[in-house]
Amino acid sequence: MRSPLKPGATIGILGGGQLARMLALAAAPLGLRCHVYTPEENSCALDVVHDATIAAYDDEKALARFAEAVDIVTYEFENVPARTAEILAAHRPVLPDPKVLETTQDRLIEKNFITRLKIATAPFAPVHSATQLAEGLAKVGVPAVLKTRTLGYDGKGQEKIMAAADAGAAWRRLKHVPCILEGFVNFQREVSVIAARSADGNVECFELTENDHRDHILHISRVPAKATPALETEARRVATRIVNAFDYVGVMGIEMFVVKRGREQHVLVNEVAPRVHNSGHWTIDGATVSQFEQHIRAVAGLPLAKPKRLGAKVEMRNLIGDEILSTADYLTQPNTAVHIYGKGKPSPRRKMGHVTRVWPGK
Amino acid sequence: MRSPLKPGATIGILGGGQLARMLALAAAPLGLRCHVYTPEENSCALDVVHDATIAAYDDEKALARFAEAVDIVTYEFENVPARTAEILAAHRPVLPDPKVLETTQDRLIEKNFITRLKIATAPFAPVHSATQLAEGLAKVGVPAVLKTRTLGYDGKGQEKIMAAADAGAAWRRLKHVPCILEGFVNFQREVSVIAARSADGNVECFELTENDHRDHILHISRVPAKATPALETEARRVATRIVNAFDYVGVMGIEMFVVKRGREQHVLVNEVAPRVHNSGHWTIDGATVSQFEQHIRAVAGLPLAKPKRLGAKVEMRNLIGDEILSTADYLTQPNTAVHIYGKGKPSPRRKMGHVTRVWPGK
Repeated sequence: MRSPLKPGATIGILGGGQLARMLALAAAPLGLRCHVYTPEENSCALDVVHDATIAAYDDEKALARFAEAVDIVTYEFENVPARTAEILAAHRPVLPDPKVLETTQDRLIEKNFITRLKIATAPFAPVHSATQLAEGLAKVGVPAVLKTRTLGYDGKGQEKIMAAADAGAAWRRLKHVPCILEGFVNFQREVSVIAARSADGNVECFELTENDHRDHILHISRVPAKATPALETEARRVATRIVNAFDYVGVMGIEMFVVKRGREQHVLVNEVAPRVHNSGHWTIDGATVSQFEQHIRAVAGLPLAKPKRLGAKVEMRNLIGDEILSTADYLTQPNTAVHIYGKGKPSPRRKMGHVTRVWPGK
Repeated sequence: MRSPLKPGATIGILGGGQLARMLALAAAPLGLRCHVYTPEENSCALDVVHDATIAAYDDEKALARFAEAVDIVTYEFENVPARTAEILAAHRPVLPDPKVLETTQDRLIEKNFITRLKIATAPFAPVHSATQLAEGLAKVGVPAVLKTRTLGYDGKGQEKIMAAADAGAAWRRLKHVPCILEGFVNFQREVSVIAARSADGNVECFELTENDHRDHILHISRVPAKATPALETEARRVATRIVNAFDYVGVMGIEMFVVKRGREQHVLVNEVAPRVHNSGHWTIDGATVSQFEQHIRAVAGLPLAKPKRLGAKVEMRNLIGDEILSTADYLTQPNTAVHIYGKGKPSPRRKMGHVTRVWPGK
């Protein structure tokens, strides 16, 4: 076991977006510095750190210098190239372990991994050929969703298939890259568990969060979720089993569907994100510890905190695109925290900020 | 009235200590950048900002360049030299208005100012001569405290006088600089109000805070304070009268003594600090808005938030000197937020960090 980072140590963060920014803001109160590595000069995380490297993810010299300048490395996004992770890992601990990325960068490998843990998912089938597409449709039925195995997010790289006859055209629109066909799940609601795991195997889950999506992008997270204690226990158990199976260190976001089977509710795992997660943003203002601090604690080798909700209920709303222009209104609303990511001009579908309302009380 | 700062604007902060650091951490979620001006290269605020100027407070060229690089200027300490403020104000708005400093930098002017507002203070007398020292002792009695009019803090620049015969020696130890003699107050407890005022005259006070000092340095702040509703109302009214009298913009810390007069409790104002204040640190974790965000909102021309306590009670404990070495313990304690200022090696009597415990519940 590595010894914990001491105040004054530096955490390298790959990526310069809002997640890196909020990680750096959470590291500071623990006395830890952050060094941001990003290919883009105008990355919003640069505003809140002293040390930065602006270089491509395949710039091996810059990566080596960056690794030498920091004590450990973590990342804000799951699409870290394997070679980038390898170069960094040769110099410094990279946490969560990059081997997790091999699984989570590929929807098919991820679904197989989860299935092997005896955790339920939507029905799925690999699509590498026209034959497999037909077999998949026979297995999962319609409606279904065809998704690229890699690089999809916020609804990008996926096509909904309403009738089997449309499947060929859908795959063509995805340029016949390797895909996964997922059966449509008639879910009651979408929820997520933000789980943190420390190197010594301690796991702390935040409270089950209920999520509304709009146009494939997270719109609102609500806590507490509408869920029975039994369902919440099941969701936490599932999340715990997943982070343990990865021997994970850090925070992971696990998205789930709530489905009804007879009179009982159960969860199906939709996808996992090996990083802090948008549906955990409410924890900054609504919990005794944030997901960002919890991630920093985990990768720094510090003990995890036991998260407790503050207030009777909490609601986080994303500000997408032009919605960021309405922050003046939110600043006048009671018990409302405004988070502007500092990304400059808004563009459509871009996450520009979020607001969190905490209702005081027990 | 100036128009509010827009996301992407830059606030210049004079001073690079923990207050500047926490101001910068609070400005980021509002989409505002901070540029720190400090004479010391290893200032802890530098870790959390992109833009910095390392220069002396009398470096007129550096001050002018700094002012040009920012949209407004604020400060973390009350001893900003008058000439420094003047140079900056020629280029950019300086908030709170530096004229406040002329009052608060001098204990005698400050006490006269407060007295003219018909607000009670400890009895006091100016000491510029041996005659005045004798007259002062006759007026305020013993025990008393002799304090330098300027530049004192955390117990520095003051001498306790237990008997009139000791007064001459005490003034000699203070090198016969202009002083103020303050009568000893037999107080029940020390409290403070952290008040914020916006340019349009709106005032929001945080809940009355009870403070324990140890060796003249703030040790623990507790909320709620042990106080009747009447006393809390009086304390808020006093604070409001003071910030209004200054036509103040920003956060001010107002320290008070609670004294008994017959069966009633009243407050006497001890001193005011034209800046965010150590006794308001609990608001970071224990309130719906922090004093730091409230200050940023005020100076940026944004609407103030209405602060509400989170949790049943909150306790903030300073980590002075070697106490910073015990953060590993605090990291394992429930509902406890750890704030390490990143100042490097601890030295005695230096504020190195603080911890805040929030008891969930209503």
